[in-house]
Amino acid sequence: MSWNRKHLLDIESLSAEEITTVLDTATAFKAVGQRAIKKVPALRGKTVVNLFIEPSTRTRISFELAALRLTADVINFTAEASSLKKGETLKDTARNLEALNADIIIIRHRAAGAPHFLARVLNASVINAGDGAHEHPTQALLDAFTIREKKGRIAGLKVTILGDILYSRVARSNIWTLTKLGAKVTLCGPSTLVPKVFERMGCRVTYNVEEAIVDADIINLLRIQHERQRQTMFPSIGEYASLFGVTKDRLKRTRPDVVIMHPGPINRGVEIDSDIADGDRSVILEQVTNGLAVRMASLFLINGGQGPAEVNS
Amino acid sequence: MSWNRKHLLDIESLSAEEITTVLDTATAFKAVGQRAIKKVPALRGKTVVNLFIEPSTRTRISFELAALRLTADVINFTAEASSLKKGETLKDTARNLEALNADIIIIRHRAAGAPHFLARVLNASVINAGDGAHEHPTQALLDAFTIREKKGRIAGLKVTILGDILYSRVARSNIWTLTKLGAKVTLCGPSTLVPKVFERMGCRVTYNVEEAIVDADIINLLRIQHERQRQTMFPSIGEYASLFGVTKDRLKRTRPDVVIMHPGPINRGVEIDSDIADGDRSVILEQVTNGLAVRMASLFLINGGQGPAEVNS
Amino acid sequence: MSWNRKHLLDIESLSAEEITTVLDTATAFKAVGQRAIKKVPALRGKTVVNLFIEPSTRTRISFELAALRLTADVINFTAEASSLKKGETLKDTARNLEALNADIIIIRHRAAGAPHFLARVLNASVINAGDGAHEHPTQALLDAFTIREKKGRIAGLKVTILGDILYSRVARSNIWTLTKLGAKVTLCGPSTLVPKVFERMGCRVTYNVEEAIVDADIINLLRIQHERQRQTMFPSIGEYASLFGVTKDRLKRTRPDVVIMHPGPINRGVEIDSDIADGDRSVILEQVTNGLAVRMASLFLINGGQGPAEVNS
Repeated sequence: MSWNRKHLLDIESLSAEEITTVLDTATAFKAVGQRAIKKVPALRGKTVVNLFIEPSTRTRISFELAALRLTADVINFTAEASSLKKGETLKDTARNLEALNADIIIIRHRAAGAPHFLARVLNASVINAGDGAHEHPTQALLDAFTIREKKGRIAGLKVTILGDILYSRVARSNIWTLTKLGAKVTLCGPSTLVPKVFERMGCRVTYNVEEAIVDADIINLLRIQHERQRQTMFPSIGEYASLFGVTKDRLKRTRPDVVIMHPGPINRGVEIDSDIADGDRSVILEQVTNGLAVRMASLFLINGGQGPAEVNS
Repeated sequence: MSWNRKHLLDIESLSAEEITTVLDTATAFKAVGQRAIKKVPALRGKTVVNLFIEPSTRTRISFELAALRLTADVINFTAEASSLKKGETLKDTARNLEALNADIIIIRHRAAGAPHFLARVLNASVINAGDGAHEHPTQALLDAFTIREKKGRIAGLKVTILGDILYSRVARSNIWTLTKLGAKVTLCGPSTLVPKVFERMGCRVTYNVEEAIVDADIINLLRIQHERQRQTMFPSIGEYASLFGVTKDRLKRTRPDVVIMHPGPINRGVEIDSDIADGDRSVILEQVTNGLAVRMASLFLINGGQGPAEVNS
Repeated sequence: MSWNRKHLLDIESLSAEEITTVLDTATAFKAVGQRAIKKVPALRGKTVVNLFIEPSTRTRISFELAALRLTADVINFTAEASSLKKGETLKDTARNLEALNADIIIIRHRAAGAPHFLARVLNASVINAGDGAHEHPTQALLDAFTIREKKGRIAGLKVTILGDILYSRVARSNIWTLTKLGAKVTLCGPSTLVPKVFERMGCRVTYNVEEAIVDADIINLLRIQHERQRQTMFPSIGEYASLFGVTKDRLKRTRPDVVIMHPGPINRGVEIDSDIADGDRSVILEQVTNGLAVRMASLFLINGGQGPAEVNS
């Protein structure tokens, strides 16, 4: 066991051993999710607050269920109905939540660094549920969990991340996780969205999608944010789909055992053809299931849990 | 005991014996609601999702409390704050919820057939909480429960349903339930909203309200949706009230033991005079209480519960 | 022990002994909040409804957590998504909630007297979480709890309430609580907002802020509602800050052991300088913590709990 942290703020500062501890603990919690009674009492009497300043129903529900299955009390706090609208600062909001004896505050925020800021000003534990274009650690951990489960290992695998890398916290957290665990990461997408500077993080950068996917063990597709499309960055959804979408034709030129991932929600026919999303190479729904296990593991470890052995004790 | 179903999608496909099993089980759960500790552990460790694509605070709360009193973990998912706004399909939303190990998904949706569609594409159990103008099975079951409780039986009773039958899922589910259990159903309302075709379901259709109510054992009033009034269908709220509203004068020409029902929320002075709604013939609030018992019974049976005997074991 | 009430509607009708019982019981619950497992089973199987017709995330969350830590089932019902929008009356909404076997209904409403009205028409217990400009009893109780904790007593203390007294339910409930418990209350603020008529409640009224604070043991600042500023009442936020804000200069002319309170959320630089809000005379965050204990005590006593001794039994 190697977990001694009070917060889960990013992947960048974690060691490979710490990441592996989360994954191993998540394996134990995935088994809990398959029991008739999907609950353990690990966080009984603890208070977990979902502080979602940037809305995200999926991630919020995943954390909420993770906390409920650990028997915690959970409070959802969203920006819309809150004092933040009355001009209160994030710090004041968070310290007020902490004053309610909150043990763990899960924060999603548009500003990169917001979780680190809270970790400095609070006594409660903080989990980053996505901060700006910076990091989204539990997404990367669930992706790594899924890869390890499908391939038996992560070290030595070729993982291609495809899409809007520049603005993606999912990409950043994935790159940290995968390189720390010894995978070879390729980034691909429109050149405006995949700057060469990412090579400094140890990745290969290419703008040729065929080259990016031909020998990949894993293809991880990022969501195109077309509801808030960056118009100057790429011309149209249709063009993106034709240049970078995973189509049947493109899939023929990949390894037969390639695994297709996507953090969801998917845009069918844009990042991925509908049939492929539902096909046997896709693990998109398994990622959702694994996300719950990874979030239970994160809450459990942050709360002082002692690794996978304790889950089943 | 005769319940062997994974879903509760409609009344049309249920047998009289199955309906009776729900009512008998609900009787046991109504007693639970009167205890000092209103909880049983039947669904401990199970996850119930309220997927309300069409909003309904009352019905959602009734299902939420029913699940909490069965000790389930409950997640509320409404359309407003969700990925559905980002263009995700209902199927993807539901499969993502199922991937969180959801055991039962309760869906309300504007489209008739949405619950049946989910039942085909999911492994989780599905409960229909109202789909378009199609069915609202738990409403009809709670209405039948209330009638049976008040009158001791349903077979042979004369039940009049008054209002906008054409667009009402409550009416359809009630007609199925009552005719299967042997009641004689009369439909009445504006002729544009009560087409003769309902006679094929075994009902009497009349446009004469006095004739409809004179010998009724039960009068079940449907809510006029005046916030989204079908303007071409009837001229005005005032005219509806004067033609079809249950007034003191009209009540004089009914049986002295008539029972007045309404699924709520009521429009005082439209479907029903305010005094009558609060009077001793009205069972409107008892319907609410019974709704909770019926929903506990539905969740319990769907989850594999073995009928009323097991509730108290 | 001296608590025999079914509702908590206001402070005006409580005796000093009853107020003290709440504070003593809250002391026991504050200790619960510092345990590893912050829960007691006192309200297991009870249903608590947060009926917040006027939105307030903080107060709602405080009551929600209080109920969860007493192991109650909690339902949140807000006006936005409800039948109230469809023209349903408050009475009908509340009676429908009660029909779901709700044991305690916590109501916040813009209209003074709404909680008293509900207490008359319901069988359930009612807690007032703020009604118009009338009362906010749990806020006053948590303020009194904080004062007693800091000063060891309330009788004989000099308490100054500063701000918009006229429209403040917090001020009214504080005045009742403090005068019943024997404190000397001074009111200060813009003359348009602090009418002389408050002297009839046993308070001193002054428009000279220096005079109001010079010998105060406690200064309780009210929030300026600048998002819905009463424009005819005072000229500007800046002028308010300069005339009545607690600045470093003003603080120098107070007792060295003065305690600064504020019900939150604070407007930094308006009612209070930012450094003072975070300084060692401020107990603003302790008030939040104490609010939870006072609300647990209120729910517990309303539910028939027998005072502090029982909390720890």
